[in-house]
Amino acid sequence: MTTSISLGASPTIEFERGVEQDVIRVGVIGYGYWGPNIVRNFHGQEHSRVMMICDKSANSIRRVQQSYPEIQVTGDADDLLTATDIDAVAIITPVHTHFDLAKRALENGKHIFVEKPFTCTSAQAEELIELAERKNLKIMVDHTFLFTGAVKRMRQLIDDGVLGDLYYYDSTRVNLGLFQHDVNVIWDLAPHDLSIMDYLIAEKPQAVVATGEHHLNGKADIGFLTVYYPKNIIGHVNVNWLSPVKVRTTLIGGEKRMVVWNDLDADEKLKVYDKGAKMTNAEGVYQLLVSYRSGDMWAPRVEQIEALRVEASYFADCVLNDKNPFNDGHAGLRVVRVLEAADQSLEQKGKIINL
Amino acid sequence: MTTSISLGASPTIEFERGVEQDVIRVGVIGYGYWGPNIVRNFHGQEHSRVMMICDKSANSIRRVQQSYPEIQVTGDADDLLTATDIDAVAIITPVHTHFDLAKRALENGKHIFVEKPFTCTSAQAEELIELAERKNLKIMVDHTFLFTGAVKRMRQLIDDGVLGDLYYYDSTRVNLGLFQHDVNVIWDLAPHDLSIMDYLIAEKPQAVVATGEHHLNGKADIGFLTVYYPKNIIGHVNVNWLSPVKVRTTLIGGEKRMVVWNDLDADEKLKVYDKGAKMTNAEGVYQLLVSYRSGDMWAPRVEQIEALRVEASYFADCVLNDKNPFNDGHAGLRVVRVLEAADQSLEQKGKIINL
Amino acid sequence: MTTSISLGASPTIEFERGVEQDVIRVGVIGYGYWGPNIVRNFHGQEHSRVMMICDKSANSIRRVQQSYPEIQVTGDADDLLTATDIDAVAIITPVHTHFDLAKRALENGKHIFVEKPFTCTSAQAEELIELAERKNLKIMVDHTFLFTGAVKRMRQLIDDGVLGDLYYYDSTRVNLGLFQHDVNVIWDLAPHDLSIMDYLIAEKPQAVVATGEHHLNGKADIGFLTVYYPKNIIGHVNVNWLSPVKVRTTLIGGEKRMVVWNDLDADEKLKVYDKGAKMTNAEGVYQLLVSYRSGDMWAPRVEQIEALRVEASYFADCVLNDKNPFNDGHAGLRVVRVLEAADQSLEQKGKIINL
Amino acid sequence: MTTSISLGASPTIEFERGVEQDVIRVGVIGYGYWGPNIVRNFHGQEHSRVMMICDKSANSIRRVQQSYPEIQVTGDADDLLTATDIDAVAIITPVHTHFDLAKRALENGKHIFVEKPFTCTSAQAEELIELAERKNLKIMVDHTFLFTGAVKRMRQLIDDGVLGDLYYYDSTRVNLGLFQHDVNVIWDLAPHDLSIMDYLIAEKPQAVVATGEHHLNGKADIGFLTVYYPKNIIGHVNVNWLSPVKVRTTLIGGEKRMVVWNDLDADEKLKVYDKGAKMTNAEGVYQLLVSYRSGDMWAPRVEQIEALRVEASYFADCVLNDKNPFNDGHAGLRVVRVLEAADQSLEQKGKIINL
Repeated sequence: MTTSISLGASPTIEFERGVEQDVIRVGVIGYGYWGPNIVRNFHGQEHSRVMMICDKSANSIRRVQQSYPEIQVTGDADDLLTATDIDAVAIITPVHTHFDLAKRALENGKHIFVEKPFTCTSAQAEELIELAERKNLKIMVDHTFLFTGAVKRMRQLIDDGVLGDLYYYDSTRVNLGLFQHDVNVIWDLAPHDLSIMDYLIAEKPQAVVATGEHHLNGKADIGFLTVYYPKNIIGHVNVNWLSPVKVRTTLIGGEKRMVVWNDLDADEKLKVYDKGAKMTNAEGVYQLLVSYRSGDMWAPRVEQIEALRVEASYFADCVLNDKNPFNDGHAGLRVVRVLEAADQSLEQKGKIINL
Repeated sequence: MTTSISLGASPTIEFERGVEQDVIRVGVIGYGYWGPNIVRNFHGQEHSRVMMICDKSANSIRRVQQSYPEIQVTGDADDLLTATDIDAVAIITPVHTHFDLAKRALENGKHIFVEKPFTCTSAQAEELIELAERKNLKIMVDHTFLFTGAVKRMRQLIDDGVLGDLYYYDSTRVNLGLFQHDVNVIWDLAPHDLSIMDYLIAEKPQAVVATGEHHLNGKADIGFLTVYYPKNIIGHVNVNWLSPVKVRTTLIGGEKRMVVWNDLDADEKLKVYDKGAKMTNAEGVYQLLVSYRSGDMWAPRVEQIEALRVEASYFADCVLNDKNPFNDGHAGLRVVRVLEAADQSLEQKGKIINL
Repeated sequence: MTTSISLGASPTIEFERGVEQDVIRVGVIGYGYWGPNIVRNFHGQEHSRVMMICDKSANSIRRVQQSYPEIQVTGDADDLLTATDIDAVAIITPVHTHFDLAKRALENGKHIFVEKPFTCTSAQAEELIELAERKNLKIMVDHTFLFTGAVKRMRQLIDDGVLGDLYYYDSTRVNLGLFQHDVNVIWDLAPHDLSIMDYLIAEKPQAVVATGEHHLNGKADIGFLTVYYPKNIIGHVNVNWLSPVKVRTTLIGGEKRMVVWNDLDADEKLKVYDKGAKMTNAEGVYQLLVSYRSGDMWAPRVEQIEALRVEASYFADCVLNDKNPFNDGHAGLRVVRVLEAADQSLEQKGKIINL
Repeated sequence: MTTSISLGASPTIEFERGVEQDVIRVGVIGYGYWGPNIVRNFHGQEHSRVMMICDKSANSIRRVQQSYPEIQVTGDADDLLTATDIDAVAIITPVHTHFDLAKRALENGKHIFVEKPFTCTSAQAEELIELAERKNLKIMVDHTFLFTGAVKRMRQLIDDGVLGDLYYYDSTRVNLGLFQHDVNVIWDLAPHDLSIMDYLIAEKPQAVVATGEHHLNGKADIGFLTVYYPKNIIGHVNVNWLSPVKVRTTLIGGEKRMVVWNDLDADEKLKVYDKGAKMTNAEGVYQLLVSYRSGDMWAPRVEQIEALRVEASYFADCVLNDKNPFNDGHAGLRVVRVLEAADQSLEQKGKIINL
C-alpha cells in the first residue's frame, strides 16, 4: 500500500504507520519570527509535510490558520508531541525551552530538528544525543548557513587547497536590535559563525576568550569572541546589537589566497583575492623578509537557492533513508561548548577558557 | 634684531641665537616611509623650517638632496643633536630607537616631536617626560589622527552631547602589509585608535584584553584588543596585516546617536545615525522592553586640510609660545601603557591586565 | 442593508448591487510576473477584494488555485468583464492588449486599473479617457513608483523649495534582461522615470530625443532618452537590458541642493547634498564667475511601506468615494505621448520630436 | 660628442644641436591646473628634461621657481618657441590657444605635445597635421587615459576576443565643477571617452547626437552624447558639471562578456562579468528566445603606474627614435571631429550629424 497525498483546494493527507513512506510528517513548535520560514520550507517539499503547528500565542495561531487552513493547530505542545501521525518535531522556540521539548519529542519516538543554539548547556546536548542514539532517532540542529551557496563554496575552496593553509576567520555580524530576552548577543548571533567555523576549519578549537559589555539590561549587547585553534589558526567574531548599520562581513585569510564574504551583497557575496604573504629567506639565514603577492580578484558565482529549503529537504532525506546529518547533535554540541566557554570568559572579563 | 628668511631661487635662512624668533628650526631624524611627510609639512610652514635631516641610508640622503638641495644632510645623529642652529628634533625612526634619540635631544636642549608610539616602555616615557619638564622643553607625540577633521568633528559631537552617553568605540584597521620588523601588529596599527580613544573618551581605561596570532614570524600579525572603561564603555580594535582588503572603519555607539567613521570614503567620512535603543518600562516593573529608534542619517562636511600640516603648525606654536600640547608626553605615555598591557595580555592569550 | 464580509477558513463574500458599499470587488486579468503582486495587494486590503482572476495559461490558473482557493478563475476574459459581482478590472497584461480589454471593461461599467504603459498609442488613451468620463468610471494607471516613500519624499523636497529651481533629472535604469517580447527597452523601463518626471517636474515636456540600438532582435535593447522642458530643465533616462550590473540611480540637480536616489540601497535610498553652483558677479558686469558650495549630506528616513499596497488602497478610495486619482488616464496619456515621440525619434536616430 | 647631463644640487644641462641625443629638451607653455603634472613627469624622465616654462601669471611663475629653481621661466611664449635649446613644446593651455601656439612651434621646428582636445576645429587639426608631416615633426595629443592600466587592459580583453562582438560603450563622467570658461561640458569631459572609444572600438563613428542644457551661463553644463558606429555598436557619454557626486563609471557590453570600469575604485577598477545574452532558436523559426548567461566575475589586477609618466616617456621615445605615436594628430583630429559634430547637434537640440 502506498501513501496517498492529494493537494488542492481541500488538501487531505493520509499516512499509514508501518508502511514504506517517502514523506515525513512534521510538527512545528513555535510560530514566531523564524517559525513561518520553517513551515513554508518543510510544507512545500516533495518529501515532507507539516501536519500540526503549536504556539501559545492566539495571534500566531490565527496567522497559521490564514496561511495554512489545512494544517492543524494547537496551543499545547503535548498534543503535538504525542500525535501518532507525526514523525518529526521541529523546535523553533527560545533556547531555554529546547532541552525539555526535545527530550519529550525523542521519548515519544520523534526525530527532532532544533533551532540553534542546540541547548543551554553541553550536558543537555549530551543527554539528548545519547537518548537519540539509543532510540535510533535523528537530531538535526538548524545551522542554516551551512546550506548557503556561499559557505558551501568556501568549504570547497578550502578543501581544494585554493586558500592554502588557513590563517584566520574574522567575522563582523552587527546590526541594530533585535534583543533576545533570554540570551546575550553572543548566544544570539555568534552561533552562526561558530557553526561555520566548525564546518570550515579542520582543527578543533582549543580555547576561548570573550569580552563584551552591556548597556541596557544585564545581558551583553556587544561582544568579541576569540577562538584559538592548533596550527596558529585564530577565529574572531564581533557581534553587536547596537550598531547603526547592518554588517555581515567575514574575512578569511589563507597562505595562498584570501576571501571576503559579504553576505549583504546580492550579487557578489564571495570575493577571492589572489593575495598572500610569506617569509622569504632573502640573502642568508639571518635575513628573513616578508614578501607580499597581489593579483587578480575573482567573485565565483554562488548558488542562489534558499538555504533553509535545501536543509529541510536534507532533513527529510536523513530521516527517510536513515542517514546521519553532518549538522547533527554532535555539531550542535560543539557550538554549545564554545558558547558555554564564552560565557565563562565574559563573566571574568576575558579570562581564557580551555576547551 | 630680527630673524631674516629669504626664500626664492637660492634660499638662505639665517637665525641668530638669543633673539626673538618666530620660526623654529627643526632637525629630522629618519627619512624612510613617514619622514618625507614630516619634512614637507615642517618645511613648508610659516613658523618652522627644516635645517638638517639625518638618515643612515645613502639612498635616503640622495632623495633628500634631490628634493631639498638647501637642507643639510648627515648620516650621524650626533651632528644633528648637537647642532646649535636647531631648536627642535623630529624623531621619525623605529620605536626601539626613540628613547635614546629623544633623551639625547632633550639633554642637548632640543624640543622633541616623536613618532608614535612614543617609546617601548612606560618607564622610558616617564623618564623623558621628567627630563623635558626639568629642562622646560616640549614633547609632542605624533598622534596625527587627532588633527584630522573627522576626529575633531567626532570630539565635537561628543562634547555637544549629540551622541549622548558613550557605549562603545569599535575600530577595524586592517590591510595587506606593511610588516614592521621590530613590533607586532598591535604596536604598529593600534596606537592610532588608542590615541583617538584617549582623546574621545572622557574616562580612563581600566583593563586590557588582547588576543592575536602570528603566522610568518614570531610577531603577531593579527590582533584584537578590548579596552574596558568605567560606566560600561568598551573599546575594541581589530588590527591585521594579512587582510585582503584595506578597511578603516570605526563604529561609535551612543545612547542617542551612533556614528560610522569610514576613513577611506573620500567624501563622506562621517555618518551620524539618528538611531538608538533604550530600556522602557512597559507595563510594570517586571516588564522591561528595549525600544529602538531609527531616523535620518547625516554626513557632516569634514574639514579637508592635511592633518600633519595642522599638527606641525601647532608644534611650532607650542614651542614658540610656550604652550603645552595636548598630545604631549603624557598622552604618549597613556598610549604606551595600554600597549604594554596588551603585550602582557597577548602573551597570556587574553589574560585581563588591569591598568 | 449592509455588505457582509466574513473572512476565515472558508471565506464568503456577498455584495448586493445598489447598496452602499465599502469594498470594491476586483477582477484581475493577467497572472504572470506582476499579477501575483496585484492580487496580493488588492486582496489583502480593507476596502477591496479580488473576486476573479483570468489567465490563459493553465499553469497560472493552477498557481492561483493553490494560493487563493477562494478566488474564482477563468481562461476567458469575457467571463470576468461581464461578471455582475465585479466593480473594477485590473489589467496586468502585455501592453498591446490593454486598449481592447480596457475598452470592454469600461463598456461593461467597470472601473479600470491598468498596468503601465497605459496604451500603445495616445489615440487609444484618449479614447479610453473619453469613454470613462462619459460613463463616470475611474481609470488608474499603475505608476507604482509614485507611491514609494522615496518619490513622495523627493516631491516634498521640491514642493518645499529645498532643492530650489530644478536643473535636471538624470536616471540610469539598467540590468541584464528581462526582454519584453512586444516592446523595446524604452517602453519597458522608461515609463517608470517618465511617470516620476511627470510627477516631480512642474513643467510640461516640450520635445524628445531618443537614441539606442538593438543587438539581438529588432527591438532596441539599449536606449537613451532626453526630454526637454521649459526653464532649461532637462530630463535624461538611460535604459539597458544588456548591463552586467543592476543600477537604479537617479541624480536630481537643483539650484540650492541636489539629490541622489539609489533605489537599490536598502537603508539610505535618498541622499540630499547641500551643494550647488551659481553665477556670481565678481567685480563688474564683465566678470561672471561660477561659485560652488559644498556642505553636509543628509539621508532622510524614507517610509518603508510597500508602494503597491498604498496604491491599491488609493484605488479603492477613489472608486468608493468618487475621487479622481492623480495617476489617472491623463497621467497615463502624458507618459504614452513621450513614449510615442521617443519611438519616432529612435527610428530617425535621434531626430528631435516636439510634443 | 655626447650630451652631458649632470643632476644634483645645482643641475646644469648642456646639449649640442646636430649630435646624437638621448634626451629631448622640452619647453612647457601653461602652468595652471594640469601643467605641473606635465612638468613633473617630463622632468623626471630618463630621456626628457624640461628647459623652460612659460606662463603669463606671475603667481604660476613663482610656483615654478620654488619647485624647480633650475628651470628657466618666461611670460612670453616667443622666448620658448624660438629657444634653440628646446626640441619639443608641450602646450597645456586653454583649447582656443592651441592652434596658434602649436603652429608657431612647428614652424620653429619643434615637436609638439598638445593638451586635449587637440584644436577648436577639424580644419585647424588638419592644418597642423599637414605642417608637421611636411617638416617631419611629431604631434602627440595628450589622451592620457590611453596610457592607464585599465584602458590598456580593456583593449587587450577586446583584442583577445574575451568580450566577443562589442555591443556598447556607456560612460558616466560627472562631478561638481570645474567649469571651463571657454568650452562647454562636452568639450571639457567627453574627450576622455571619445579618445578611449577611438582606441577600443575598431569601427569608425558614423553619426553623432548630442543633447544637453545650460543653467548658469550660455555654455552647456550637462550633456548627453550618442555616437553611432557600424555593426550596431553604440557609444554614449553622460557628462555633467552639476552632479552632487563624482562618478567615473563605464559599462562595456559584449556578446560574450561585459565590463564595468569604475575609475574611482582604488583596488578593483575593472570587473569582467561572465554574462551575456543571445538569441536562441527555441523550437522553430517562429520562436526566437533570448537566453541569458550569468557566471563568475573577475577583477584583473590593473597596472598602477602613473599614466602620464608612461605617456611622457613614450613621447620622448617617439621623438628620439622617429616613431609615429598612436595618439598622434590624426587621433586628435578624430576626437575633434566628433566634438564638432556634437556642438552642431547640441545647437539643434539633438539633430543627428553624420560624420
